[in-house]
Amino acid sequence: MNKTRLEAFSDGVIAIIITIMVLELKVPSGNDWNSLRPLLPVFLGYILSFIYIGIYWNNHHHMLHTVSRVNGKILWANLHLLFWLSLIPFVTGWMGQNPVVPLPNALYGVVLFMSAIAYTILQGCIISTHGGQDSLLARAVAKDRKGKVSLLLYLVAIVMAFCNEWGADVIYVLVAVLWLIPDPRIERVLD
Amino acid sequence: MNKTRLEAFSDGVIAIIITIMVLELKVPSGNDWNSLRPLLPVFLGYILSFIYIGIYWNNHHHMLHTVSRVNGKILWANLHLLFWLSLIPFVTGWMGQNPVVPLPNALYGVVLFMSAIAYTILQGCIISTHGGQDSLLARAVAKDRKGKVSLLLYLVAIVMAFCNEWGADVIYVLVAVLWLIPDPRIERVLD
Amino acid sequence: MNKTRLEAFSDGVIAIIITIMVLELKVPSGNDWNSLRPLLPVFLGYILSFIYIGIYWNNHHHMLHTVSRVNGKILWANLHLLFWLSLIPFVTGWMGQNPVVPLPNALYGVVLFMSAIAYTILQGCIISTHGGQDSLLARAVAKDRKGKVSLLLYLVAIVMAFCNEWGADVIYVLVAVLWLIPDPRIERVLD
Amino acid sequence: MNKTRLEAFSDGVIAIIITIMVLELKVPSGNDWNSLRPLLPVFLGYILSFIYIGIYWNNHHHMLHTVSRVNGKILWANLHLLFWLSLIPFVTGWMGQNPVVPLPNALYGVVLFMSAIAYTILQGCIISTHGGQDSLLARAVAKDRKGKVSLLLYLVAIVMAFCNEWGADVIYVLVAVLWLIPDPRIERVLD
Repeated sequence: MNKTRLEAFSDGVIAIIITIMVLELKVPSGNDWNSLRPLLPVFLGYILSFIYIGIYWNNHHHMLHTVSRVNGKILWANLHLLFWLSLIPFVTGWMGQNPVVPLPNALYGVVLFMSAIAYTILQGCIISTHGGQDSLLARAVAKDRKGKVSLLLYLVAIVMAFCNEWGADVIYVLVAVLWLIPDPRIERVLD
Repeated sequence: MNKTRLEAFSDGVIAIIITIMVLELKVPSGNDWNSLRPLLPVFLGYILSFIYIGIYWNNHHHMLHTVSRVNGKILWANLHLLFWLSLIPFVTGWMGQNPVVPLPNALYGVVLFMSAIAYTILQGCIISTHGGQDSLLARAVAKDRKGKVSLLLYLVAIVMAFCNEWGADVIYVLVAVLWLIPDPRIERVLD
Repeated sequence: MNKTRLEAFSDGVIAIIITIMVLELKVPSGNDWNSLRPLLPVFLGYILSFIYIGIYWNNHHHMLHTVSRVNGKILWANLHLLFWLSLIPFVTGWMGQNPVVPLPNALYGVVLFMSAIAYTILQGCIISTHGGQDSLLARAVAKDRKGKVSLLLYLVAIVMAFCNEWGADVIYVLVAVLWLIPDPRIERVLD
Repeated sequence: MNKTRLEAFSDGVIAIIITIMVLELKVPSGNDWNSLRPLLPVFLGYILSFIYIGIYWNNHHHMLHTVSRVNGKILWANLHLLFWLSLIPFVTGWMGQNPVVPLPNALYGVVLFMSAIAYTILQGCIISTHGGQDSLLARAVAKDRKGKVSLLLYLVAIVMAFCNEWGADVIYVLVAVLWLIPDPRIERVLD
């Protein structure tokens, strides 16, 4: 199994996900400011999801740098991650259409949470097939505090969505900011 | 004719198929649990088709490992396979909207059956241009029992869809599970 | 300017065109044979257009084999070709919805005609920047009789669409068959 | 961070943007010339945006030629550019549906303006990480008069859209023509 083709396929899928998301930004039937107003939350959601998928692409890229061989387990863990990422356009569109309704805001968090879980599983698969705790990736992520904190924050946001939708949204933005700063851990270990 | 470009093109088409399928998961107009409920069968169908396309990508990848030269016959056999795979989003969407109706469930099986036939034809083309029964691929797939059993099961499911839709769906899941386990035959022969 | 990136970009656009075309095959609201019937002409049109785009991908591929340097002229001639190909999903969808109406059948021919013109222009650009009549490509296509006959047949079909839609469709199928046989000219000269 | 993968990802996203834009060209419900007429402005807008994205792809390509190392800053500046480009299908569709209404014409200009700003930022990031004013790219773009004039013209067009929509459109076409001529600056310096 060829790592290049796995990267190319993942890049393709992520490029399509990040781009078809814009299709949720439907051309309005009106032609004035009022007809744009309902699109504002969809647009803000689009920005946030665009950043999230950018982060995943970036980190995925870094992580695959440490991979030297690909087996069936890694392949399916990778497809599992792409599956959850592929649901981001759907939940972004739903949340954008219902910005102050609990369920769509919570579901957005569920998909982010599952994507993060899928990323963690993929990370675990790569570590276990590349020398376990001595592997490059294991040393790079170490205790993976950022990953664990994110998972916790997603859970908090999912619950909070049912009390205060804006609170949940603030947490989603916060976690994105947390990751926007490119992860120096892998680069450090590679050096 | 360049094998790399054939792989890249196939990867591109498969990446798009697996991703646009999510567009069948239409953002509901409501915003509560009830508005999500009719999406459940579409979502389950999406998972199943995602796995099927993942399997095809994986096996296609393995099969192309054994290819050293590409001619017009292989190219068109490959496009023929991509054609049937490209219909999977359509039948997934139709079955998802009509989970307990015979025809959509049967048509899903027809597209899976034709995809499998197209895969077998592509396999045959590769074998016949790479040394026939002595070729790497011919030795790898040998009697291709898994392929033949799948074809048979699809036929059973298509007929069963008209008596018992769930029975057909169970068979579709079963065949996917059968293939989820990565095919060790080609890897074995390559070693 | 890098030939590899030109190929990769063209492959990407062509892969997307061939795949989004299936989105014109809308999931019907009914669930029986009657609801599938109006989709039949759309489906037949999809098959024909899929084959046409497959032919263009194949021939484009062969033609780029003879290219050693890319300049602005070639780049824009290539984008011009991709532009006309990108309209194929639209005219396929319109013709499929109106199989026995003159205008949609004629417009399908217009887009095929313009794609063929764009291909001829691209061919001319490559020849003129690679040594003119002595270039590999010029010797391969020679008098380009197949190309000229196709252009003529498209024109006949466009006119015929206004008298007899099926006559036009038969010509579209005929031209596709003419090209389905992979073009041995470039391969011959390369040898 | 690998430049090849950055290029491949950008190519993928740009290929998808340029292609899904055609989805705004909705298949009309009628089947005669009258049903095509409202599509004419959408079609003209499609041509213009196709050319703009072609220009960006071309220039992006040239610019990345001068890049030898990619860091987080360049990666995010690149994603920022892709973000604004991804909005072009939306504003093209809206302007096409409302060709003589000020706001959609102005918004088209805003997205072009922001794309140009994003391109300038990316250019600045590449220059600052590749030796500043001594870098290849800095010498190639020099005072970047064409870039600055374009920004100014976009601003003029945005204001003009509220007085005379056609005036704004003429400026958009003008700027495209200005850039259609491939940028010889980088090629000159590379030589």
